[in-house]
Amino acid sequence: MSYERPNIAQMQGYTWGEQPADARTLKLNTNENPYPPSPAVGQALRTFDADLLRRYPQPTADPFRDLVAAHFGLERQQILVTNGGDELLRLAFTTFLSPGQPFATAAPSYSLYPVLAAVADAPVLNIPLDDHWQLPDDFVAQLNSAGAGLCALVNPHAPSGVLMPLAQLEAVADEFDGVLLIDEAYVDFVDPDAAQETTALLQAHDNVLLLRTLSKGYALAGLRLGWGMGAASLIEPMLTKTRDSYNINAVTQALAAAAFADQAHARDSWTRVRNERARLADALAELGFTMPTSQSNFLLAYAPASVPAAETLYLGLKARGILVRWFNQPRLRDALRISIGTPEENDRLLSVLRELTSHQD
Amino acid sequence: MSYERPNIAQMQGYTWGEQPADARTLKLNTNENPYPPSPAVGQALRTFDADLLRRYPQPTADPFRDLVAAHFGLERQQILVTNGGDELLRLAFTTFLSPGQPFATAAPSYSLYPVLAAVADAPVLNIPLDDHWQLPDDFVAQLNSAGAGLCALVNPHAPSGVLMPLAQLEAVADEFDGVLLIDEAYVDFVDPDAAQETTALLQAHDNVLLLRTLSKGYALAGLRLGWGMGAASLIEPMLTKTRDSYNINAVTQALAAAAFADQAHARDSWTRVRNERARLADALAELGFTMPTSQSNFLLAYAPASVPAAETLYLGLKARGILVRWFNQPRLRDALRISIGTPEENDRLLSVLRELTSHQD
Repeated sequence: MSYERPNIAQMQGYTWGEQPADARTLKLNTNENPYPPSPAVGQALRTFDADLLRRYPQPTADPFRDLVAAHFGLERQQILVTNGGDELLRLAFTTFLSPGQPFATAAPSYSLYPVLAAVADAPVLNIPLDDHWQLPDDFVAQLNSAGAGLCALVNPHAPSGVLMPLAQLEAVADEFDGVLLIDEAYVDFVDPDAAQETTALLQAHDNVLLLRTLSKGYALAGLRLGWGMGAASLIEPMLTKTRDSYNINAVTQALAAAAFADQAHARDSWTRVRNERARLADALAELGFTMPTSQSNFLLAYAPASVPAAETLYLGLKARGILVRWFNQPRLRDALRISIGTPEENDRLLSVLRELTSHQD
Repeated sequence: MSYERPNIAQMQGYTWGEQPADARTLKLNTNENPYPPSPAVGQALRTFDADLLRRYPQPTADPFRDLVAAHFGLERQQILVTNGGDELLRLAFTTFLSPGQPFATAAPSYSLYPVLAAVADAPVLNIPLDDHWQLPDDFVAQLNSAGAGLCALVNPHAPSGVLMPLAQLEAVADEFDGVLLIDEAYVDFVDPDAAQETTALLQAHDNVLLLRTLSKGYALAGLRLGWGMGAASLIEPMLTKTRDSYNINAVTQALAAAAFADQAHARDSWTRVRNERARLADALAELGFTMPTSQSNFLLAYAPASVPAAETLYLGLKARGILVRWFNQPRLRDALRISIGTPEENDRLLSVLRELTSHQD
């Protein structure tokens, strides 16, 4: 017999990106940073005293909270450190959404959201983005009339890479009756000219929660370290009630601090990714692909009509040892989501794509 | 305004054990292993390639699952690796208990359980243990008549340290309509003569979930690594639906494997803790304390009537730099829960206790 809660028994789990066993596979499918983490991380690993692991870790990762607070000009009480950004998402569902109360997002979006909503037994309100990947004018009206308790927006948006203007986010925060979570997993890759001070939203809004992570910008997807920033009143119940008591282990705390403290290393990788993003976008455009303007570390490249369908290209790339992401869903079915690699990796991708697309000539 | 779910707004969070800032403090309050982890853990730290952290970790910690499965003669599908035992507890609540459905335990018990029940919006059925710290005869009848969906029993029991016989656990598993979670956080410290093959319960019962952890037996409280063992049908929904997708980071996976593989080191620390447990129990008895027979790495020592109250002893020890645990609740108010330290640490404790208890002479 099944002992699962009815909503759990009925739901489908999350499908994570493919993890190839073959080390020669070129992985451009899960938006990892193509450059390694700061050398300070390796140094912290080698100098960590294993005997300290006998004791429980600092329960709330306060040293890392203090680093983040100082960097963003916030207070420690406004920071929550989590086991990857995913834990912050889960905690927001657990803390702010009652069973049956709608969760809202702008579609298409991160495929983990509906999974978390199913666990929380909450219906999902998917409000389609417009043709320019922006929120429709009646977005907040729809949220409030549905009684949504939590809304999550990825910004820069995934999988389009498009940046939503701060004024639009602020308008949502102003009028929304629930908690607005802005998932900024990719924010480090935004052009400095286009960068927006989203932390400024926190001053006047006690319903805004910003999600950040070391996974992409700091090349530490394997470390699982994210954090939330928001009003102390929003952080407190997640910190003291719904979070697992010791959610960040002692090694992770040490390595995360080492990585975050080396801003120069991280910034250098962001610049390199941006330069390659521009070059790769130009080269894909030459092959006939069209793309929304990405401020992230990936491109959503729509295949030209004259070449094989996106699914065929995805499979062709895979057969040649290159993984990209293909989503079998409306609006995305004709596109490939391609993570930005190193110059050599992008050249390898372009070379295979040239071959695959020229077969039609 | 508060954006919290009503049950979250009303609940109290977990209070973790005191973490002294002063390194000279003798910490006998949170049941950590007094001996360091295996040297293989330090070796794994020093040789881990930090550049691997760029990539996502293996999502389900399969290498560690395989180690555990081989050790216990189980299948990989019967193992779930978690961010400390606490995550397994949370997942059991999330997966197997509907809001409003009772959670049951044998009182007194782990103070995290009612917190997790409050998050799950589940009432708590506290069934008192009898005078010998054993389950009352009508335990299962009470569970089933209340409609409990999940029951957690700590075995060896905390805070008494008393071991519950396997036959009794089997009887509960046989008749209980819900999921029985046996929290074996302290099982490594059971005398080899008294050891019970609880994994045998899994063969005939698809409703039994065993909790294990590296925190105590492997001296790795700071690493946050636990695991669950149960029927594949019980493990699967937690693994694929309710668990955060990448819950164990890559460093933790490597260090945990190194520690678990060094069984000889762990076993040696268990023997030493058992020897000291016997010596400390004898010495406390000489001072007039009474204790249930502990099969764990702590003693629940009831103060003799002739000396200051347990609370006064707790405060007196604390003033002299020794932390033990005192619970201000029925049945425990007259006792101190004392973690077993090294011989030198236990001598220091005994010396101060002699001083504190002789003041009454």
